Amino acid sequence: MNVQARGANHPGNMVMLPFSNLRRLREERPLMFVKGKGIYTFDEHGRDYIEAVSTFYCVNLGFSDEELIEAAVEQLRALPMYPSGIHRTVPVVMELAERLAEKAPVRGGHVMFATTGSEANDQLLKFTWYANRVAGEPQRRKIISRRASYHGGTIATTALAGSPALQEAFGIPTGDSLFVSHPTWPIGANPGETEEAYTDRLVEELRQTIEAAGPETVAAFIAEPVSVSSGMFPPPVGYFQKVKALLDRYGIRLFADEVVTGFGRTGRLWGSETLGIEPDCISCAKGLSGAYQPISAVVMSDDFYSYLEEGSNSAGIFNHGGTYGGHPVSAAVALKVLDIFERRNILGHVQSIMPIWQKALASLEDHPLVTATRCFGLAGAVQIARPGEGGPVAASPSLAPGGLSEQLYQEGLAAGVVVRPLQGCVVLAPPLIITEAEIGELSRRLRVALDATLAALPR
Amino acid sequence: MNVQARGANHPGNMVMLPFSNLRRLREERPLMFVKGKGIYTFDEHGRDYIEAVSTFYCVNLGFSDEELIEAAVEQLRALPMYPSGIHRTVPVVMELAERLAEKAPVRGGHVMFATTGSEANDQLLKFTWYANRVAGEPQRRKIISRRASYHGGTIATTALAGSPALQEAFGIPTGDSLFVSHPTWPIGANPGETEEAYTDRLVEELRQTIEAAGPETVAAFIAEPVSVSSGMFPPPVGYFQKVKALLDRYGIRLFADEVVTGFGRTGRLWGSETLGIEPDCISCAKGLSGAYQPISAVVMSDDFYSYLEEGSNSAGIFNHGGTYGGHPVSAAVALKVLDIFERRNILGHVQSIMPIWQKALASLEDHPLVTATRCFGLAGAVQIARPGEGGPVAASPSLAPGGLSEQLYQEGLAAGVVVRPLQGCVVLAPPLIITEAEIGELSRRLRVALDATLAALPR
Repeated sequence: MNVQARGANHPGNMVMLPFSNLRRLREERPLMFVKGKGIYTFDEHGRDYIEAVSTFYCVNLGFSDEELIEAAVEQLRALPMYPSGIHRTVPVVMELAERLAEKAPVRGGHVMFATTGSEANDQLLKFTWYANRVAGEPQRRKIISRRASYHGGTIATTALAGSPALQEAFGIPTGDSLFVSHPTWPIGANPGETEEAYTDRLVEELRQTIEAAGPETVAAFIAEPVSVSSGMFPPPVGYFQKVKALLDRYGIRLFADEVVTGFGRTGRLWGSETLGIEPDCISCAKGLSGAYQPISAVVMSDDFYSYLEEGSNSAGIFNHGGTYGGHPVSAAVALKVLDIFERRNILGHVQSIMPIWQKALASLEDHPLVTATRCFGLAGAVQIARPGEGGPVAASPSLAPGGLSEQLYQEGLAAGVVVRPLQGCVVLAPPLIITEAEIGELSRRLRVALDATLAALPR
Repeated sequence: MNVQARGANHPGNMVMLPFSNLRRLREERPLMFVKGKGIYTFDEHGRDYIEAVSTFYCVNLGFSDEELIEAAVEQLRALPMYPSGIHRTVPVVMELAERLAEKAPVRGGHVMFATTGSEANDQLLKFTWYANRVAGEPQRRKIISRRASYHGGTIATTALAGSPALQEAFGIPTGDSLFVSHPTWPIGANPGETEEAYTDRLVEELRQTIEAAGPETVAAFIAEPVSVSSGMFPPPVGYFQKVKALLDRYGIRLFADEVVTGFGRTGRLWGSETLGIEPDCISCAKGLSGAYQPISAVVMSDDFYSYLEEGSNSAGIFNHGGTYGGHPVSAAVALKVLDIFERRNILGHVQSIMPIWQKALASLEDHPLVTATRCFGLAGAVQIARPGEGGPVAASPSLAPGGLSEQLYQEGLAAGVVVRPLQGCVVLAPPLIITEAEIGELSRRLRVALDATLAALPR
C-alpha cells in the first residue's frame, strides 16, 4: 500500500460512494457538505442548496434542529449505548415502541427495531417466513412487489426491487419474488381507459400472478403507499382497497413500506392513513428520526406477531437481532420527533402548505421542457422532455438516468437546488417544515435550472 | 387497538426484543439499563454490572467516554446528517475512509461504509457477485463459511451462519452456501492427533469441499480471525496460512469478518494482523465507533475494487447504497476512536493487560464447575460442566443454551457481571480499557456466580 502515491491522487480513491460512478470518484472530488440549516445545506465553498428531496427523502424536519440535537446529546450523556436483546433494554426503546404501536394503523401493534430501512424490510421477510413455518405453511414464501419499486439494498430486499437490470448486475437470487405492474395513472392507461378500469386491470394482473404462482405459495404483497422514488405516481382510485380485498381472499398479507411515506410526507403521519390502507405490517425508517440518527422499525399486527411469539416460546428465544437495532441515542431522537410532530403541529403545517406546494409545481408547466407535474402530499414530480419529444414515460427507479433529467439535476446544483433525477422526470420531497416563501424560492431556482437546461440543448 | 388494556399489561407487550423469549417478554419486565461508566452499567434500580462481554462485543472503549460523546455532539451541531451518495458526501466520511484504508491490512484499501455489521457482510456478498460478473465469472457465487459461525442477521448473511437450526427456523435459502468445520483445538482433535495434523485435516476438508462444489463456482471463504461467539477457540497453528495458500490455488477470495475482532480485541488493531491473515476484504463494525453510533465498513483490496469500478463506469453508477451508510455523526465518532487508540495507546494497554486477563481466567480452573478456560487477546471462555460430567464440547453459536451456562448467566446477573452463555461455556470480552483491579473484581464476581450455580445444583 503506497500511501504517498495515494496522497497525490484524489481522496475519492479511498472512499466508495453509493450511487456514484467510481471512476469519476477517482478523478473528481465529490460535492462536500459541511453545514445545514432548515431546508438548506452548505457546501465546503459556502454555497447554499435547497434540499428539495430532503437529501434521500429523510431529513424531514430539516437540518440542525436544536431540539433533535439536544435529544441526542441528552441520551449520549446518560447512556451512549446499550444494545437491546436477551431480555435487556433501555427505557427510551420501550417508550418508543409503545408510542409507535399506538400510532401505527396496524391492529395491535408490536414493534421490532432495526437500524436501516433496508434492514427493516429484510427482517420483515425473515419474520414472514418464520411465522409461516410456525403456522404450518412453510411453502408460503413468495413476496409480490411492484416493478420499478425499491425496498432496500440488502440482497434479499434487492430481490424485491422492480428492476431486472439491478438484480442482474448483482446476481441477486429472485426465486421467491413475483412482480406486478406499478400503477402509473394516467400514463400507463390504455387509450380511452377510465381510472376505475385501469385499477381493475392492475388488480386482475395481480390475481393472475397469484393464481399462476399458486396462491398457497404467496406470503405477502409489499408496496409503498406512494412510491416517490419510482416517479411519484399516486395510486389510482380504489387501488389499495381492491388489492387488499383480493389478498384477503387468498390469505396473503399486505405490507406497507413506509420508509419514505411515514411521518408526514403525505399529510398524515402514515401514508397508509392518507390512502386508507390497512396493512398487516408497516416498515419505517428515515422520517422516524428525521435521519439525525440511524433507526428503523417494523410494526406488526397481533395476528402476525402471535406466530413469532409462539415460535420463540417453543425454541426458547427468537433467534434474530442486531447490535444497533433500536440504538438508545436513535430511539431518543425518534421520541423527540414524535413530540415535535405534536407540539409544533407538523401535520397541520404540511396540510396547510400542500395547496401552495401543488400550485408552485403546477406553475412550472408553462416551461418548454415540462410536460406534466404530479403532486401528492409534500412530494412531487416534474416530468420533462425535449421540446416536441414529450411522450409517455414509464415508472423508473433508475438513479442513472443520464439524458435530460441528469442535465437538469446538474443545472439544479448550479442553481442551488438539489432534485432527484429519474428517467423522464425529477422528483421532489422537501423537508416538511418548508414555508410558503421557501417554496417560492425552490420553484424559482428550479426554473433557473430548467432555463439553463433548455439553453444548453443543441439547436 | 385497545390502549387501555395494553397499559394494564406489561410494556414488553409492545417492544419485541432480539434473542429473547417473546412470551416471557409479555409477562416479565426486561432488565432496564439507564446509565454506564467505564466497564460498568447501572440498571433502573441502581444496581451495577460489569459488562464482561462489552454488551454485544461492542462497547470496547467503555461507557460514557467524554471524548466520544463530544465528537458526536460536535458533528451533530455542525451537520447532523448528510447521506453519502450520488457523488456527494461530507468531510468526516472522506477522512475516515482514508484512515481506515491506511490502517487495514488489505492491499490498497478502498472503503465502503454501511450501518451495521450485518449490512457490511451482506453488501460484501453483493459486491462479490457483482465483481465476479464483471470479471466474466458469474457462476463463481458460492461462499464458504464455518459451522457455528455468525456473520449477520440479514437473510443473506444468515445463510452463512453455521447453524442449520437457525436457517431452518427462518426458512433461509442456503443454495450459495458451503460449510466446513470450525477449528476447536484441542477439543475437536482426534485422539493422539497433533495440532499440525489437526490443521491439515481441516484444510483437507476445505479442499474436498471446494472440489466437490466445483472450484469455479466458489467465490470466497469468510471467517472471523477468532470467533468469540462460537466459543472462543483460537485457530490452531498455521491454520489461516494453509487456508490462504489453498484458496489462492483456486482463485478463491479470503474475507475476514472483523466485526468482533477489529479495533483491538486481539491485542492489535485487527485480528488479521495478530493472526497473520492477508485478506482480500475486511468487514468491521462495533469497535469501529465503540458502538456509540451505528456504523460499519468493508475495506477492499485494489484488485477486488477494480471490478466494481469498472462495472460502475460501464453502467454509469454503482447502483447500491443506503441512507445511513457512513452517517456523519457515526463517522465523526469513529474518527475519534482512531484518535483515542493512538493518543491513549489502547493497544499498548491491551497488550500489557492480556497476561493479567489470562491469569485471572486460569485462576478459575480450580472451581468444581470449570473444566477449562481459553484465552485470546482480551477475550476468553470459561468451559463449565456439572461435576463429573465434563466432556468435550463442540463449538456452538447458540444464544439459547439453557442448562448450566444459562444458570451461570443468571447467577452472573445476580452477582453483577454480565457474561454470554453458550453451550457448555460462557464467553467474555470486556471493554479494552479494563484495569488490573477491575479484572480482579470481574473474576471475583464470576466466582460468586459459579459458587451460586454450584450451590443451586440438585444434589
